[in-house]
Amino acid sequence: MWLRNCWYVIAWDHEIPSHDEERLFTRKVLNEPIMVYRRQDGEMVAMADKCCHRHAPLSVGRREGDAIRCGYHGMLFDATGRCIEIPGIERVPAQACVKTYPLQVKNKWVFVWMGEPERADPQMLPDNFSCDHPNWVNLPGYMHYDTPYLLIADNLLDFSHLSYVHAKTLGGSPAIAQARPQVERVTSNGQRGVKVSRFIDNVPAPPFYQRFRPFDSPLNRWFVYDFLFPSTLLMSSGGRPVGDSPDDDRRAVRLHSCQTLTPETETSTHYFFQQSHPAGVSDPAVKQSIYQSLVEAFNEDRDMITAQFRNLAPGAEADMLPLHFDVALVQFRKMLQDAVAAEQT
Amino acid sequence: MWLRNCWYVIAWDHEIPSHDEERLFTRKVLNEPIMVYRRQDGEMVAMADKCCHRHAPLSVGRREGDAIRCGYHGMLFDATGRCIEIPGIERVPAQACVKTYPLQVKNKWVFVWMGEPERADPQMLPDNFSCDHPNWVNLPGYMHYDTPYLLIADNLLDFSHLSYVHAKTLGGSPAIAQARPQVERVTSNGQRGVKVSRFIDNVPAPPFYQRFRPFDSPLNRWFVYDFLFPSTLLMSSGGRPVGDSPDDDRRAVRLHSCQTLTPETETSTHYFFQQSHPAGVSDPAVKQSIYQSLVEAFNEDRDMITAQFRNLAPGAEADMLPLHFDVALVQFRKMLQDAVAAEQT
Amino acid sequence: MWLRNCWYVIAWDHEIPSHDEERLFTRKVLNEPIMVYRRQDGEMVAMADKCCHRHAPLSVGRREGDAIRCGYHGMLFDATGRCIEIPGIERVPAQACVKTYPLQVKNKWVFVWMGEPERADPQMLPDNFSCDHPNWVNLPGYMHYDTPYLLIADNLLDFSHLSYVHAKTLGGSPAIAQARPQVERVTSNGQRGVKVSRFIDNVPAPPFYQRFRPFDSPLNRWFVYDFLFPSTLLMSSGGRPVGDSPDDDRRAVRLHSCQTLTPETETSTHYFFQQSHPAGVSDPAVKQSIYQSLVEAFNEDRDMITAQFRNLAPGAEADMLPLHFDVALVQFRKMLQDAVAAEQT
Repeated sequence: MWLRNCWYVIAWDHEIPSHDEERLFTRKVLNEPIMVYRRQDGEMVAMADKCCHRHAPLSVGRREGDAIRCGYHGMLFDATGRCIEIPGIERVPAQACVKTYPLQVKNKWVFVWMGEPERADPQMLPDNFSCDHPNWVNLPGYMHYDTPYLLIADNLLDFSHLSYVHAKTLGGSPAIAQARPQVERVTSNGQRGVKVSRFIDNVPAPPFYQRFRPFDSPLNRWFVYDFLFPSTLLMSSGGRPVGDSPDDDRRAVRLHSCQTLTPETETSTHYFFQQSHPAGVSDPAVKQSIYQSLVEAFNEDRDMITAQFRNLAPGAEADMLPLHFDVALVQFRKMLQDAVAAEQT
Repeated sequence: MWLRNCWYVIAWDHEIPSHDEERLFTRKVLNEPIMVYRRQDGEMVAMADKCCHRHAPLSVGRREGDAIRCGYHGMLFDATGRCIEIPGIERVPAQACVKTYPLQVKNKWVFVWMGEPERADPQMLPDNFSCDHPNWVNLPGYMHYDTPYLLIADNLLDFSHLSYVHAKTLGGSPAIAQARPQVERVTSNGQRGVKVSRFIDNVPAPPFYQRFRPFDSPLNRWFVYDFLFPSTLLMSSGGRPVGDSPDDDRRAVRLHSCQTLTPETETSTHYFFQQSHPAGVSDPAVKQSIYQSLVEAFNEDRDMITAQFRNLAPGAEADMLPLHFDVALVQFRKMLQDAVAAEQT
Repeated sequence: MWLRNCWYVIAWDHEIPSHDEERLFTRKVLNEPIMVYRRQDGEMVAMADKCCHRHAPLSVGRREGDAIRCGYHGMLFDATGRCIEIPGIERVPAQACVKTYPLQVKNKWVFVWMGEPERADPQMLPDNFSCDHPNWVNLPGYMHYDTPYLLIADNLLDFSHLSYVHAKTLGGSPAIAQARPQVERVTSNGQRGVKVSRFIDNVPAPPFYQRFRPFDSPLNRWFVYDFLFPSTLLMSSGGRPVGDSPDDDRRAVRLHSCQTLTPETETSTHYFFQQSHPAGVSDPAVKQSIYQSLVEAFNEDRDMITAQFRNLAPGAEADMLPLHFDVALVQFRKMLQDAVAAEQT
C-alpha cells in the first residue's frame, strides 16, 4: 500500500557523492532503483537507475560532466534523462530517455517524488527543521529494516511500547503505556496525518536522560508529534523535574526528532532519523552519546518488529485484536488507505 | 498432509527451562509458533507464541510468576491464555486471549495436541517407555531436517536402506535389504499405524555392535517396530550369535528405540530420538559411544533424504516406482491420508 | 524458452572422472540432474541422476563396474539405465529403469541431447574444432552464471559492448561500438542461427593484444562469428597493423574462440569457453596469460549481466527499447522462439 503522489526521503545529503567523485549513488524506493548524483552546479538529479535499452543499472556506468554513460553499450544521457548519444547511431530516437524524478533537498534530507511529476509540490515537504538548524544539534542516522514499512509506522504511532521495548533505554516507566494519548487528525499546509500528544507526570527519568545530566528526582514528560504522509514523524519531547515551571528549561531535557520511513520493497524499508537537542546545552561528547542511545533503542525496535513480521501468518492482520492504543495507527492507516484508493481511481 | 487430532512431540522435557530461568522456550509445530514454559507448581503450559494484539512473539517477552508479559505493549496473559492486564486499559476485553494447547508429558517427551482441544486424549499417547525406564539406558537426541516429515517417515518405514545408507554403521550386510519384512496394520488401544517385523539370520555384526563387545561370529538379527500416527517409531531390535538360544541374552545385543517426527513447516521437521540398551550391561562410556554411533548414522540418513528432497521436481511423487519394500510406507501413507481426509470432512 | 531437440554441452571431457575414480560427476541441464560417467571401455554414459524408485540422486551411490548402485535402497542399473538388480526382489519389473541421454564427445566438449532420443543427430554438433586441434592452443574455461542464459546470449550477439564493458581488456576503443556489423541468417549443415561480421579499421590494439607482442601502431580488427542453436558462438577474430596485407600474418593476431551456454535452470547457466591462438606463435607462458585476460573480461560480462538481471522488473522485456545493435539478438531470439514453438506443437 504505497502512496505515490508524495515525497519520500531517498538519502541524507551527505550520502550523495560530490560531482568529482567517481562513485554513483543508487537506492531502491517503492521497488524502483533510483540513482542520485550532483551536477557540476551542485544541483542534484534523481534518475531511474535503469538504461532504457536493456535495463542495465546506469550506476555501474560513469559520469561524463553532468551526463551519465551507460556501462553496457555506451548510451549517454543528459541530466534530464534524454539520450544524447548512441555509439554507432546517427539519429537518437525520441523515445530514448530515462525517467527522472522531481527532487528536493530540505534540511539535509533528499526527497524524491514518486507520483505524477507535474503534481510535485514543495509545499508538501515536511517541516524537518531540526535536521539542520543552528539552535539544534544531532547526528544523522540510517537503518535498514527487513520488514514492511507500515509495521514500523505502527510502532511509531503507539508509544506505549516505550514502557516495554525500551524499558532500559528511552522508556524507564510503565506509566508511559498507562497514559492515554490525545490523537487528532492533521490536514493543513499540504500535510495529512495525525497528531499524537502524550503527557506523563511524575515518573523517573529514563536511562538515556542521564547522558545529559544526573536526574535523581521524578520528571514530568511529554511527547507531542505529527505523523504525516507518507510516513514521517516530527516530534517535540522532553521532561522536566516535577515542580519546575513550564517556562523554566534550566533543568529540562528538550528534544526534537525527525524520523521517516521509505519503502524499499514490499518487505523492506529505509529508516532515516535524528534526534536533536538544543545547541550549547552540553559538551560535544554528549551528541555522540545521545546518538548511541538512540541507535541502541532503535535496534530494540528493529528486533521486535522483525520478530513480529516473521511471526505473521498470511492474512494475519484480520486476526489482530485492536485496542485503544491503536487509535492513532488505525486512524493513520485508514487515512492512508483512503488516499491510496483515491489515487488509484 | 497433517493430521491434527493427535499428539506431536514438541520437546524433550529437559529442553524446557525451569520456572526460575528467564529464557522462554519456543518451537514451531505444523507452522504454528508455540511457547512452552513451566508454572511454579511444575506443570507445563503450551501457549501460542503470538500475542493476540499485534502478533508479536510472546517468547521475547517475560515471565511474571505464572503469567507472561508481552514485550511489545505489555499485555499480561495468565497460564490459561486469558489476558489479565492491558496497561492503560481498565476493562480487558473478553476476546483478549491467546490460544493454549493441551499438553502431556510422558517418559520425558513433551506432547502438544494440535487439533480440537476437547478431543485431546492421553490414551492416544504412544508407549515410549524406554525413554525413561530404570531398566533401560539412553541419551536423548534431537535433529532438525530441512525436508518434509513424510520423506523421513518413508525412510523409517523401510529398513532395506540399512544395507546401503548405513553399510558402515547400523547395517553391515546386504542381507537386511534382501530380507522381506512382515507388515501388519495396527489399530488398537487408540493407536493406528503399521507393525513391521524383519528377521535376518546368519549375518555379520554391524559395525556399531562392536561398541558393546567384540563379535567375531555371525548373528541372527531382528527389527520389530510399530510406526504409529502421526509419525512415531517404537522398536525392539537386536542380534544374538547364531546358535544361541532365544532365551539366552548373555551374548545378545538388545535395543529399544523411540523416534518421532514433528512437522515444523511443510518443508522442515523436528526429529526426536533415542536408542536404549539394557541398564547394567556395560560400562558408562558405552552409552555415549552408542549415542555417537546413532547420530553418525542419522546424519547419513539426513544427507540422503535431503539430497533426495532437493532432487524432487514438482509432482515427483506420481512419477516414483513403487516396489515391494514400499509396502509399509504405502500402507502407512494411505492410512494417514484417509485419516486426514476424514478429519477435514 | 528452451529448445529440446538439440545438443547441449554438459562438461569439458577432463571434468568427467576416469572409470577407476570413485567420484561421480553430476550437473543440472534444463533443470534435469544428469550424471555422466565413463564405462570401462572408455565410452561415456549420461544418465538421469535420479533413481526411478524414490528419486534419490544416483551420484551419491557408487559404481560397480559399468553399473551404478543407488545409495539409498541398493537398486543396480546398467549403463543403459535398465535396472538389473533390486535387493530382495527376484523379478525386476520392466518399468524399473532410469532415463539415459544420447551423448557425444566432440573436440573435448561433452554434449547431451535433451529432446527425443531418436532424433539425436551428430550432424547437428557445432564445429568447435579449435577446442582440440594441433594448430591451435588454448586453455579450457568454465563459469557459472546466476542469470538466464538468453541474457548472456544477448551479450554475445552484440559486440558493441566491448567498447564499454571491456574498455580496459578486450575492447580498447569506442570504434567497435560505432562499427555496424553485418548480420546474416545461417541455416545449413544442420546448423541454425546467425552470422555476425564486424570490421573495424585503424584502431589502437586492445590491451590484451599486448600479451602477444608490443603493438604501437593502429590495427585493422575483425570479428566474424556464427551464433548457433541452442547457444554456441564460433568465432574468428583478430587484428593486423594498418597497411599489412591480408595475406601477411607475421604481425597479425589471429584467434579462434568457441563458447557455449547451457541453461542449468530458468535463472542459472553453465558457460563453457576457450579462445585459441595458433600453435607455435609464442612462448608457453602466453597461453596462461591469454586465458587470464579472457577470464578477467568474462568476469566483467558476468558482473554487468548479473547487475542487469537483478535490475529487471517482471515483464521488463516489453519495456526495453530496441536499437540497431540489437539486430542480431532480435533475429536470433525470433528464430529460437519459432523453433521452440514448432517443437511444442
